[in-house]
This record gives sequence, C-alpha cells and structure tokens, in this order.
Amino acid sequence: MAAYEYLGMPREEIDTPVLLVELEVLEANIEMLARHFRESGKHLRPHTKSHKTPAIAHKQLEAGAIGITCAKLGEAEAMAQAGINDILVANEVIGPKKITRLMSLARHCDIMVAVDNPENLAQLEEAAARAGVKPRILIEVNIGHNRCGVAAGSQAAVELAKAAARCRHLRFFGLMGYEGHVVDLEDREAREGGARECLQRLVNTRADIEGEGVAVQICSASGTGDYYLSTTYAGITEVQAGSYALMDVAYGKLDLGFGYALSILTTVVSRPSPERVITDAGLKALTPEHGLPLVKDHWELECHALSEEHGRLRTRQGTSDIPVGAVLEFIPGHGCTTVNLYDQLHAIRKGRLEAIWPVAGRGKSR
Amino acid sequence: MAAYEYLGMPREEIDTPVLLVELEVLEANIEMLARHFRESGKHLRPHTKSHKTPAIAHKQLEAGAIGITCAKLGEAEAMAQAGINDILVANEVIGPKKITRLMSLARHCDIMVAVDNPENLAQLEEAAARAGVKPRILIEVNIGHNRCGVAAGSQAAVELAKAAARCRHLRFFGLMGYEGHVVDLEDREAREGGARECLQRLVNTRADIEGEGVAVQICSASGTGDYYLSTTYAGITEVQAGSYALMDVAYGKLDLGFGYALSILTTVVSRPSPERVITDAGLKALTPEHGLPLVKDHWELECHALSEEHGRLRTRQGTSDIPVGAVLEFIPGHGCTTVNLYDQLHAIRKGRLEAIWPVAGRGKSR
Repeated sequence: MAAYEYLGMPREEIDTPVLLVELEVLEANIEMLARHFRESGKHLRPHTKSHKTPAIAHKQLEAGAIGITCAKLGEAEAMAQAGINDILVANEVIGPKKITRLMSLARHCDIMVAVDNPENLAQLEEAAARAGVKPRILIEVNIGHNRCGVAAGSQAAVELAKAAARCRHLRFFGLMGYEGHVVDLEDREAREGGARECLQRLVNTRADIEGEGVAVQICSASGTGDYYLSTTYAGITEVQAGSYALMDVAYGKLDLGFGYALSILTTVVSRPSPERVITDAGLKALTPEHGLPLVKDHWELECHALSEEHGRLRTRQGTSDIPVGAVLEFIPGHGCTTVNLYDQLHAIRKGRLEAIWPVAGRGKSR
Repeated sequence: MAAYEYLGMPREEIDTPVLLVELEVLEANIEMLARHFRESGKHLRPHTKSHKTPAIAHKQLEAGAIGITCAKLGEAEAMAQAGINDILVANEVIGPKKITRLMSLARHCDIMVAVDNPENLAQLEEAAARAGVKPRILIEVNIGHNRCGVAAGSQAAVELAKAAARCRHLRFFGLMGYEGHVVDLEDREAREGGARECLQRLVNTRADIEGEGVAVQICSASGTGDYYLSTTYAGITEVQAGSYALMDVAYGKLDLGFGYALSILTTVVSRPSPERVITDAGLKALTPEHGLPLVKDHWELECHALSEEHGRLRTRQGTSDIPVGAVLEFIPGHGCTTVNLYDQLHAIRKGRLEAIWPVAGRGKSR
C-alpha cells in the first residue's frame, strides 16, 4: 500500500510513535518571520538543518526567503535535488572527497560555502579551477561562539578575505558568524546583550575588510532567538534563523510568538500505578539534550525521564485515569536533532493527514 | 557505484562522519560472553536494540545464543526478515494495529512478547485466535526499575500469570524483569547489591506463580553490567545482555573485559587555536545522554561539548599540532542511541573495510 493511501486519515489513527507537523502552525510561523523580513528590508536565509525537509524549505522560499542555509554538504545535495538553487553551506568543507562533491554540486545549484583557513581556501580554488565551476565563498568569523571561524577583528580575518577576493575561481561574497552560545538563552537581557556584542564584532570585522578595499556583499548571522536584533544592524544583510518554523520546548521558553508545529504522537503502553503513565516514545523517538518534552493538552502530566523506548510520565498532582492505548502528543525539547531520528514527517491539517514528507536531509551524516 | 566497490578500502579513506565496527573486537566480545554462558549452562538471548543489525545478530546466534531480544515490533520484523526465528519483544504490544502486525509476524517466526495487564492479554488472545497463530507470552514484572511491569510479589502478578496460562491461543512461557536502574552503575558494590535485590524479587515472583501450579519455563532478566550475577540464580533461565557486543564509554567504565568495537570516524575541520580542535561529528553523529565521547588513540584530546554538527575538543594540557583534515575516532558515550542515527554500519577488519551492513532495525520507530 503506497503512502498516499493513508492520506486523509485522522491524526489519532496513525500508529505511534510518529513525527507530526501541524501545517496551520508551520505556515503561521513561516509567515510571521517572512513579514518581519519584508518590513525590515533584510534577507532571510532560513537554516534547514532543523527540518531537513525540502517541502518545508520550498514553503519558506515561497514566503520570500532569499535562499536556504544548510549545515553540511549532504543536506545541500538533498535540497539541490529538490530544485533549490541558492544554498549556503554554513560550515567548512574539508578533505578531497568532500571538495570534489562540492564542485559537482556547484554545477547543479548556486552554492556558497564557509572558509576559515587559507589552506582550505587554496584547495577550494584549485578544485574549482579543475572542475570549471565558481562557487561563492563566505569567510567564517568567530564572533564569540568559539567553534570554527577566524578570530573577529584579527589581521588573519582581513588577510583571509583579501586572499578570497583574489581567487579567480571562487567568488568572494562576504562574511558569516554565529552567536550560538547566546541565541537560545532564556534570559532576554543576557541573550540580547550577548548577541549585540557578537554582532558588533561581526560588523567591525566587515569594516576592517572593507577598509582594505575588499567589497562585502553578504554578512550573515543570527538565529531564531535574536533575528529581530540583527535586522537592526546596517552591516548585517541576512539572517540564518531555522528553528522558528517547527519550534521546540527550548525555543518556546523564549516567548518569541512562534507556535509549536512539531510533535511526536505516542501511545500509553502501561499504567503501572495511578500516578505513572508509560508511553512508547523514548530516546529513539526524541532527543533530551535541550530538555524533556511537554505533553500537549495534558499539562497534568509531566515527562520526568526518557528511556530508549519509553516516555516516563507522572501526574503533577493526584492521579490520572488516562488508559493504556490512549494517544498523547509530545512537544520535543530539541526539534533539530529530533527530526534527525525520522525518515518521514507526517503533515497534519485540520486533524487529518495531508502529506507524508521525506526528511531528505536526514542520515546525510557526511 | 555499488557499496561493494568500496570494500577493501583503508579505514582512513572512508569519508566522515561514519559509524565503524571493529570486527576483531566485536567477535572477541561475542565469544567472551558466549563462553560464560556455555560454562554457566544458562541461556543468552542478546538484546539487539544496541546494534539493530541482522549481520551481528547472526554472529551472536552462531556463537550459541538461544534467540534474540528486540525492543519493539519494528525491530523484530527486521530481524525476522533476516531469517531469525526465536525472537522476544521485551515490551508490551499495544493497540489494534500493532497487535495485527504481531500476529502476522507470528506466522514468520517464533515470536514471544511481554504482557503486563489483563486487558492487553485478552486482546492478544482474541487476535491470536482470529489469526490462527500461537505466540508465546512472558509476564513483565516490575522488579525495581519502575517502568512497565506488574508489581513483583503481588497477587496481580500471580493472577496475570494464571490468566495467561489459561489462554488457548497464547502460550505462556514465564516471566521477564529488567533492573535497568542499576545495571550500568559504575560503583560495583551498588550495582551488584541493587541487582541482587531485583533478581531476588523476580525469583520470588516465579516461586509465587509456581506455587499456584503454573509452570514457568523462561525467566529472563539482566544486561551487560550484571549478566554474571543472574547466571548464578537457579530461578533465572536467560539473560538479555546487549551492549557487550559493541560497547560504549558508559559501559566501558564498568571494567567488564569487553573491548570498544564501535566508533565514529571524524575529520578535523577547524583549528581555531593551538588548544582547540573542531571535528565534523556532533549530535547528529553520536548521542550525549550517557556522556561525551573518548578520542581513541589521542588521550591528549578531550571532547568537552557536542554541537549539532561539531565535536568540540581541547587539549588536556599544552597544545596539539593535529592538522585540519586529520582523521580521529570517537568512542561514543551511548552505543544504542548512536547506532540509531545511522542507516549503515561500516565493518572494519585489519584496518580495511570488510562489509557495509544495513542497520535494518533503525527508523522502525513504531
């Protein structure tokens, strides 16, 4: 039986655990952020690492996104195969095999890739010349997250940008930075204060580079927790927010106005006592590193632990008469890594299954 | 190019991140535990939730395992399709859709399934009658883990066993319990003390049931951290250990004599400072809930954080001259959920790729 034979079935009849996206909420989230970018005059290049799903990326593009951001080559390949053209791989592409893949991909879409060291830049230039393609380059700047990136405000950043601008087979487009250590802080003051420091570093580095006569077209940064700040910086041209589309418990705490579009449908499999409810969604159905799930529409139930195959709930007070076989919905703590566990996303509208979308960017670990 | 065209390639040439199993270590682990069971006269029914890979399950059976344990129906279906016959689903099977699948599966293998409540037992009996199959049943007993299971030593446990024994279309075989809250405790005394309490509860419950004239053939419990204890109990007939085959950092701390067979090959993608090393394996390549990975053969490097796509390492003291592009190996904190991220397991012998095995039980969230 093909998947389409299930379309139209009520949500509660889909066997569990299964990953759901509520289309009304997804579309409202996409529209809300798109409106902000239309009004601010800045560009949104949504990070698709959260959903990894071409069908959702296309909705973001239709709503006005300039292109998409991917975390790695495998995701970019999946998105290009789904017809998406303007793609930033917001990471370094290292090693001869991946560089060969990158140059092949450059024939099928307008790819842009991050660079943070001169040796890698030289390898890319040589490979692009050999392949006869001209990928775009952004210099990744470490603006405080201390992961990859050349140091903000350093001479090395200026030199790397100048070297990139001299390349004949790479097109230097500008800079990117990511304030990943502050973007999801629940404390608004700490988040915004930290983000401002980071964004200022990026803008200053841009000024350093332009001061040397190198033109910067793109300056990309930020995420769901601080997109509204970066659009106030004249020097920043585009934003990589991604989690806003599906959302999760961790970003929900920031009270940004986006709704929970993502959930896991789960069945009660055991009622060992009146206070305890055991369901069939555990660590293989959702990830715990940003916190445990909420139980939608059942705030009397609290998930206190996830085993590999079980969600372990208890009543917040008193007892519950929810029976074995009842269906619950978890809002996951971390959407990005939860989606990564699934091959398919089940799209729901008005309580019924409207589409089954392949999570085409999953499993592309490489 | 088909996968077999890559066979024979040196491990270091496989593009990263990729999940590896070292066959020499895997085979030694399997043989070490098999020897213990040959000598103890007890049965090993290895839990395949750790590897989810039929090729490994077959190695365990060849070494003498009596059958296998699965965490859920989807895994059992994958294993049955790979020709495995004697399968325990060590969980309750709830809801009409899953029960229908279970009865279909019962035509293709000798399935055994856990039950912890009388309504579910009645549903299984009715479905088995309708399908004309006779699956085996174990009563799941809560021996202290407080997840699923009927309370150890309770009248309810005895009644459920008696009801199961009366079923005409289900074959009652006995009991299972799992001391999951103590099985991986690093403190040996706490682990063994806790396990003894739990195992005694299981053995006592068995005696209660047999005291009512109900024969118990199988009494199943325990895991990698305490298998050697349960084989000393006359009332326990088989053990569900699973992690011993691949191992991980969490179980490595217990010093049980099994080697690390599982690893993730990862490439250095950035060297932002002499003390910092960034690699391409993060939360989408391995799981953190039981701890961060070790860096094999590079004990001078410490993984202090995993981002979604990055392993973040620092030197334990001084600096490191490991270059961008170098290949490292992570031993994952938790093998079971790490394997669950991958579609394939790359099997290595003598430093070369010997096989690419589908992780057939992955993605069977249901």
